[in-house]
Amino acid sequence: MSIERFSLNQATIKRADLPTALDLAAAAGVRSVGLWRDRVAETGLHEATRRLAASGLRFSSLCRGGFLTDPETSDQAWKDNLAALDETAALSAAGAPGSVPVLVMVVGGLPAGERDLVAVRDRVRWFLERLEPEARTRGVRIALEPMHPVFCADRAVVPTLGHALDLVGDLDPAAAGVVVDTYHVWWDPDVVPMIERAGAERRIASYQVCDWITPVPEGALLGRGLPGKGHIDFAPLTRAVEAAGFDGDIEIEVFHQEVWDAPFTRVIGDCKRAFTEVVAPHLG
Amino acid sequence: MSIERFSLNQATIKRADLPTALDLAAAAGVRSVGLWRDRVAETGLHEATRRLAASGLRFSSLCRGGFLTDPETSDQAWKDNLAALDETAALSAAGAPGSVPVLVMVVGGLPAGERDLVAVRDRVRWFLERLEPEARTRGVRIALEPMHPVFCADRAVVPTLGHALDLVGDLDPAAAGVVVDTYHVWWDPDVVPMIERAGAERRIASYQVCDWITPVPEGALLGRGLPGKGHIDFAPLTRAVEAAGFDGDIEIEVFHQEVWDAPFTRVIGDCKRAFTEVVAPHLG
Repeated sequence: MSIERFSLNQATIKRADLPTALDLAAAAGVRSVGLWRDRVAETGLHEATRRLAASGLRFSSLCRGGFLTDPETSDQAWKDNLAALDETAALSAAGAPGSVPVLVMVVGGLPAGERDLVAVRDRVRWFLERLEPEARTRGVRIALEPMHPVFCADRAVVPTLGHALDLVGDLDPAAAGVVVDTYHVWWDPDVVPMIERAGAERRIASYQVCDWITPVPEGALLGRGLPGKGHIDFAPLTRAVEAAGFDGDIEIEVFHQEVWDAPFTRVIGDCKRAFTEVVAPHLG
Repeated sequence: MSIERFSLNQATIKRADLPTALDLAAAAGVRSVGLWRDRVAETGLHEATRRLAASGLRFSSLCRGGFLTDPETSDQAWKDNLAALDETAALSAAGAPGSVPVLVMVVGGLPAGERDLVAVRDRVRWFLERLEPEARTRGVRIALEPMHPVFCADRAVVPTLGHALDLVGDLDPAAAGVVVDTYHVWWDPDVVPMIERAGAERRIASYQVCDWITPVPEGALLGRGLPGKGHIDFAPLTRAVEAAGFDGDIEIEVFHQEVWDAPFTRVIGDCKRAFTEVVAPHLG
């Protein structure tokens, strides 16, 4: 099977700086990359766009905007998200044809001492409504990422695909979509109907694949494996995302200490194999 | 406020055997207890019922039946669940007036190597349909416990209250209900409507309270705190459970190493205080 639609999210080779990640991906025959803001900033946006253009790689998303739930840091969050929109526009313009101007949004958890989830979720909606015109003006699409409920307190108060769709429901689909990340949504009894709904509402901005492995490590963050290493059935999810009309690049984004410690080229090879064996067979 | 409706789940003082747990609870003015099968077995069912009757305590639930998702251990699971039903009947009969014959069901995770969540959930439904007449015959109510999605792979494939209600939807409400445990359901954007639905369908068999604390420890199991120690807003959940018609005892069930290591009497005192300050103010 082809790795044509495989995109390497650079967090999977976390220790690599941006030039290294681009060089290794291109050398391995990868066609697309998802980038991270901290590594873009380290290289400098101008140099990052130059290198991305030179690499011939497509750009599939920038991680990440968001962290907008704390009223105390609201002004900073606003400025930071505008900068992230600008970076997304610049990078997607620099990528090879087929690049998409997608900014992944991790909304943030409960502010310290706050327990009113309803109010915090209202705040997310309010913030996204303000941000959407800014995204539209820049030709960028914000992609709200529902995260696994284990992160509800400390990372993202949006725990299901259905809830994410509700939150962006009044916004222009061209400027506001959602991320479907297998790791975050696989457990949901409604996941397939919600993927169908996301397709019908033209909201799928990104499809990311990684596996749920046990035992869950402390803090839960690094409990992600390459597709095939854990408990997730990638067939029904991938088929549903395809049937919902998503035809873009598919990122493998793995947070796991052993993966991060391994040699970059081996990890990229493992990703290509996992994509070929576990994901690609379910693509049309 | 009163601790009249507070029930001490004995897992909160995990190191105490059953006679010790009953003695300490009664001495502390607690009125109700939730018991665990391993501790009942250690004491012996006959002696456990005798001591429970002598304690004057109400019995609010037995933990736990279930673990029925693995076809390889199906016969054993069937026998084990029948035994758990018998124990529940005996204990509830021995408890003070107001005791309830509730058996909490933790259904189990994905069997080794199995990734088909739909099939495993169908198996849960099939097993519950078989078990329900056995419960009814004994005057026992099985209480399906939806568990936090962090446990979907390894402990319970039923991750939401709505899904639990769907699974018991065709069964007699007198013999099959659900557990509402704040720790497992607090993150769900639909939790209040689902509590309302559970009330309308006469399904709330047990209300358990404990808090979600961060960071999540390895394996996630021991990340529970006394109410007030974490991120959960107990007001809307408790009010919804009350409004849904639940008027039974409310268990505090905490799994946490520091709580387990602390002196029993201090833990019981802390539970009473947490119940009085964090839960009871939202009861009618």
